[in-house]
Amino acid sequence: MAVTAGAGDPSANYGGHSADGPTVSEIGEAATIAAIREAAPSEVNGDDAAVLDPAPPNSRDIATTDVLVDGEHFRLDWSTPYEVGVKAVSQNFADIQAMGGRPTAVLMSLSAPADLPVGIVSDIARGISATAAPWGVELVGGDVVTSRQLIVSVTAIGVLAGPDPALTVDAARPGHAVVASGVIGHSAAGLALLNYYGSREAVPDNPVLQDLVSRHCAPRLIVGRGSVGRAAGMSAMTDNSDGLIRDLTTVARRSEVIIDLDGAALTPDAQLYYAADATKFGELADPVTVDGQRPLYVSGWNSL
Amino acid sequence: MAVTAGAGDPSANYGGHSADGPTVSEIGEAATIAAIREAAPSEVNGDDAAVLDPAPPNSRDIATTDVLVDGEHFRLDWSTPYEVGVKAVSQNFADIQAMGGRPTAVLMSLSAPADLPVGIVSDIARGISATAAPWGVELVGGDVVTSRQLIVSVTAIGVLAGPDPALTVDAARPGHAVVASGVIGHSAAGLALLNYYGSREAVPDNPVLQDLVSRHCAPRLIVGRGSVGRAAGMSAMTDNSDGLIRDLTTVARRSEVIIDLDGAALTPDAQLYYAADATKFGELADPVTVDGQRPLYVSGWNSL
Repeated sequence: MAVTAGAGDPSANYGGHSADGPTVSEIGEAATIAAIREAAPSEVNGDDAAVLDPAPPNSRDIATTDVLVDGEHFRLDWSTPYEVGVKAVSQNFADIQAMGGRPTAVLMSLSAPADLPVGIVSDIARGISATAAPWGVELVGGDVVTSRQLIVSVTAIGVLAGPDPALTVDAARPGHAVVASGVIGHSAAGLALLNYYGSREAVPDNPVLQDLVSRHCAPRLIVGRGSVGRAAGMSAMTDNSDGLIRDLTTVARRSEVIIDLDGAALTPDAQLYYAADATKFGELADPVTVDGQRPLYVSGWNSL
Repeated sequence: MAVTAGAGDPSANYGGHSADGPTVSEIGEAATIAAIREAAPSEVNGDDAAVLDPAPPNSRDIATTDVLVDGEHFRLDWSTPYEVGVKAVSQNFADIQAMGGRPTAVLMSLSAPADLPVGIVSDIARGISATAAPWGVELVGGDVVTSRQLIVSVTAIGVLAGPDPALTVDAARPGHAVVASGVIGHSAAGLALLNYYGSREAVPDNPVLQDLVSRHCAPRLIVGRGSVGRAAGMSAMTDNSDGLIRDLTTVARRSEVIIDLDGAALTPDAQLYYAADATKFGELADPVTVDGQRPLYVSGWNSL
């Protein structure tokens, strides 16, 4: 892919995506919003603010927000715009799950350069809509503004059912066990592959490597994990988006406990060894070792 | 004030505000978030996501989001960072009010250039916190990322009490009256003054002119207006942030009604005439006239 630098933008031709269509400035704000609403339809979007369905009795709202900046949190020559939408939702919903809740609504604020093709905006919205759909969640509102850099800011609202406490990072207690749900290290391996090969296209067309890259560009969550963990008696939970050791360190510090990780349980799986061989990244091929200075214990649950 | 251009940023020295303190990149993300939490304290901020107080029975959530971009929606040589925080909250809360609801929580996503002084971030957070406080609302969450332009993205969550419908822009009916709450045109006059004098400092130190400028840089809302309007039997409401004619045109189109505005009721007040004289802006001095092609009727309520 030919990348033409322009105006100092980290991905000035937006990775070549939808580059032939009209731009945001050509069709204007109203038509851009119309394109988003067509790509991510919702009955409640379209007034001054969105009115959500009534919450179940005795429930509490949960809210979280995350920003993805072009060139910092994604690269349009590595990820498709659709995948950026997937990632934005997964990242926010993981935070809702990590409280023991389930998401109920998502909003997007899009800061877009004037020359951004509208097709990219529609694809981001489609990724958001498709990722939220398994939860019965819609893109209920947003804002579109002009800026010098593409920035996708997503807010998720969720609900915590019943009077039991939320799952918090400060609620791990001595004697609790750490439970990890989902695979560990696959997103990091995908990023390592992209860095090693330099572009998405250069990653060999091999199902294992392509899957790892996809885990990085478009992380997907298992529906229901947060609420199931809470119903099963978990007290603390965190997502694993910053990396296992960093996220568990937050839990350990905030809970004032030490966490002892089972090195055997963290042995990299076959896919990680395969990626390590492919890239000759020696450090990926070694089993993950626990820092002897800070062994840890916690009742957590890895939600991303 | 000496403004030094740099890196193509619309306000590269950030209007000279807090320019002596450490920058966001010098203290890092964690310390920047700590500075925000100190400036805008909230018990529920600090986990993966914020858990809000239980909503009243039979209530529904309302959600809205708005983005303010440096150089587009504010200028730090015109507004203080505190005022930017005020404006971000007022803009979002006006949308909550315009549905007939009251705000319950606010989240901020801050995209900040690495060289942004942390003092500016704290001042924005203070403006948010102080503006939300009269509603009993706190800054419950957020995100801080590095970008090439200062962008403040705020999401407000609110509650709509009871089973009655929300106030929507499509619910104006023939025979309804338009009610405007608050003054009209003061923010636009403040913007005209800033454009005319070229800088905040150059606006004469006169209480009328200073008040108009303040109405533009830091618009404030009357607490309770949305819920009072809904309780009083209003059916449609809109904020007036885009300008009276534009916002009422949205109501007229979406409700499929025509709105007949009373020209006498829209006669500019003494402050507007004063500003018009001061700047010799002839068009501000003329009474606002209604476009004869599109007379209008509606039961609305101007909330900003």
